[in-house]
Amino acid sequence: MTRLAKFPDFNQNDNMAIIEPRALKGFRDFLPAAEIARRELTERIEGCFRSFGFVPIDTPALEYAEILLGKSGGETEKQIYRFRDNGDRDVALRFDLTVPFARFLAEHRADLTLPFKRYHIAKVWRGENTQKGRYREFTQCDFDIVGSDSAAADFEILLMMQKSLRAAGAGDVKIRVNHRGLFNRFLEKINALDHSAEILRTVDKLGKIGREETLALLAAFLDEDRGKKILDFVTAKSSWDDTFTAMVNAAGSGPEAERLSRIRQFIIDTGTENYFFLDPSITRGLDYYTGVVFETFLQDMPGIGSVCSGGRYDNLVGLYSKESITGVGAAIGLDRLIAALENLERLPERHSYADTAIACVSEENGGRAQALGMKFREEGISCEVMLEGSREKLAKQFALAEKKGVRFLVIPDEKNPAESITLRDLRNRENIEGISVDEAAALIRQIQEDAGKGIV
Amino acid sequence: MTRLAKFPDFNQNDNMAIIEPRALKGFRDFLPAAEIARRELTERIEGCFRSFGFVPIDTPALEYAEILLGKSGGETEKQIYRFRDNGDRDVALRFDLTVPFARFLAEHRADLTLPFKRYHIAKVWRGENTQKGRYREFTQCDFDIVGSDSAAADFEILLMMQKSLRAAGAGDVKIRVNHRGLFNRFLEKINALDHSAEILRTVDKLGKIGREETLALLAAFLDEDRGKKILDFVTAKSSWDDTFTAMVNAAGSGPEAERLSRIRQFIIDTGTENYFFLDPSITRGLDYYTGVVFETFLQDMPGIGSVCSGGRYDNLVGLYSKESITGVGAAIGLDRLIAALENLERLPERHSYADTAIACVSEENGGRAQALGMKFREEGISCEVMLEGSREKLAKQFALAEKKGVRFLVIPDEKNPAESITLRDLRNRENIEGISVDEAAALIRQIQEDAGKGIV
Repeated sequence: MTRLAKFPDFNQNDNMAIIEPRALKGFRDFLPAAEIARRELTERIEGCFRSFGFVPIDTPALEYAEILLGKSGGETEKQIYRFRDNGDRDVALRFDLTVPFARFLAEHRADLTLPFKRYHIAKVWRGENTQKGRYREFTQCDFDIVGSDSAAADFEILLMMQKSLRAAGAGDVKIRVNHRGLFNRFLEKINALDHSAEILRTVDKLGKIGREETLALLAAFLDEDRGKKILDFVTAKSSWDDTFTAMVNAAGSGPEAERLSRIRQFIIDTGTENYFFLDPSITRGLDYYTGVVFETFLQDMPGIGSVCSGGRYDNLVGLYSKESITGVGAAIGLDRLIAALENLERLPERHSYADTAIACVSEENGGRAQALGMKFREEGISCEVMLEGSREKLAKQFALAEKKGVRFLVIPDEKNPAESITLRDLRNRENIEGISVDEAAALIRQIQEDAGKGIV
Repeated sequence: MTRLAKFPDFNQNDNMAIIEPRALKGFRDFLPAAEIARRELTERIEGCFRSFGFVPIDTPALEYAEILLGKSGGETEKQIYRFRDNGDRDVALRFDLTVPFARFLAEHRADLTLPFKRYHIAKVWRGENTQKGRYREFTQCDFDIVGSDSAAADFEILLMMQKSLRAAGAGDVKIRVNHRGLFNRFLEKINALDHSAEILRTVDKLGKIGREETLALLAAFLDEDRGKKILDFVTAKSSWDDTFTAMVNAAGSGPEAERLSRIRQFIIDTGTENYFFLDPSITRGLDYYTGVVFETFLQDMPGIGSVCSGGRYDNLVGLYSKESITGVGAAIGLDRLIAALENLERLPERHSYADTAIACVSEENGGRAQALGMKFREEGISCEVMLEGSREKLAKQFALAEKKGVRFLVIPDEKNPAESITLRDLRNRENIEGISVDEAAALIRQIQEDAGKGIV
């Protein structure tokens, strides 16, 4: 282990003022119950990514600022943790996982086999103003396919969005799909492409400010006629096919419409029509997408906003390479998803990983309790060994185990502690006496299985 | 998703200079094979922690510098990533997981049930000079028990050190145990306690510079007689009991010797004598331990140094609270462990999580390949769907699947693609034709199980 020259001295504080223990604003500690839930969700999401054959990568938290922000990246500076390191390098904490992935792709192109399907679950940092549900440190779950410009890749990302959110317990989702290129083709047709950035910014507010106000904003820099046309264009019709027809009528056909048709065919072939909706109002604001774009809403809590968004880029590595690599991907905002599941009371509630606790019946014989713990673990039963206590004061250990969220307590029998134990089910306060470790392990497994069957 | 005001523009680089894609010195990217191995090890270690009923927590990467360094923490500054954030706060990236845990304990004391057993696996950052095997960003796997001053807690940490390293594939370990307090009692007896910091620093070099040179260094600020006594004291004898007797003879008995005896009894009761060695030369230099201290060496590669170290503190929260909380814990240095396993050729070698790939026999029918993938996943078989290709050019897909490290390839049959497939085992290049998804899934599972049996 590397060691620091000098650690703060924990052990002597007689002459020192106490430092107030507090985390930075916008940063959070995760206590065990919250962290267990986070890990459970992450593991389910990751399990889904892996089931699609996606592979994980990791990149540094800290990068050259130039890499993250580009040569002209001054504007975002306020939102970024950027500083000079001890070697006077201009560095910054990553603010998303896409930009580091672009750098990674350009740097390691020769070592990767395309199409490359990767996921990356990690923390990112933004120095934004904090508000409800927004943090300065948060977790993103990114998944991308690069090196394939196929509708198959677009659809696979869409399918993974639906499947990974279902795996996380989010229930049914409504994934809204659009094509940036088709929107641009329409803007070109009504002679408004020059204003596309402003139009995107304005249309993005539609859900928040309503049709009237959006029209007024559009009319201010275009005219009312084109404003109305734009609002008509971005209004979804009653079905995918009707919306598609209206969009093509307004924008004209071409490769973008063809791409949407291909994606629709994938949806039909996989019988997943209930999750995917063509919605021309989804533009992803100023994000760096050029092709299809996606946003995901929970059918049980649409108001919380998109929990998983993404889209296709023409070229991900343009900043760092003369070569061009196309890609499509999406990211689950884990913190928003957790907030939603918490609201829906669907967050996994677990306070311990221990199947059982082993009681301490005498501190002198602590080694026997540890040996018993080892035996249970060999049987695949996780267990927490109580470190202090006595046979006379078992009630205190019942209470401690319950408080820790452990359902069972193993109490070594007085006469033959190595061979015979009592298993106490703390839920119904029943004791099963005089059984062996094997028998207790089988019982615990059986009771857990029966309980599991009750859960959908 | 929170969005930045402006992302770097990936898509247009015609007029821009290319930014060289490179990570910072001392920072690393993890490509899929390396990251899969890291995750595999982390999951095994975490599985072991969980089997002991330890619970996870998480804390922010960034903290107030004062929290991490103490009020007088100037000395470590060069090794720390410390800067002013956009709100002009004096902040720093965590350099270990112990100091944030101390702050966490002081802040959340009321919400925790003692004794509290937690683990925390996360990255830490130090701006040290880089050298072989040392990085500026690395991962620590910490596990601690706080709120119990029992020998049972000391032993449980020792047992977890042995079990988690075995779970990680490190084989047999040699865990060296000592007691800081007994060493101090000895120093007091030979009237050298005033020099304890300097003595610790000097003795810590023994393994590197040898007995003669260490003696010369000690004699320089003590005298040769006491220098010799110290070197005799720190020399382990042929067995735990002989070493213990010599230590107690030199230092006198007391609670420290009693604690070592109690720990020895735990070792005997659990039959783990082969892993634990009493070694009075282990002092952990200037670390903040006050009781027992531990270091761990791989029996197959002792030269790489300690892969897991730890010890007991009198009081972990003294900097942040008037209350006192004792604790004992250890940390696995994941990066050093991985370096050792790589050297020993024991690192898990896996390039993909996909059990099988699904061939693309026609891009128009991509949806059917995706539907087939969904069916396999429902059967518990992870699979990567090939996005591009044709029945005529299957050889290219064989090569791609092999390159990605996927063993099987599913090829939909020409006449009845939904019902009947061909399963190709890329290892022996054999085809099993005309089987159903169920049959293929069962075959893949069977072949994997048989292969698994061959692995110890």
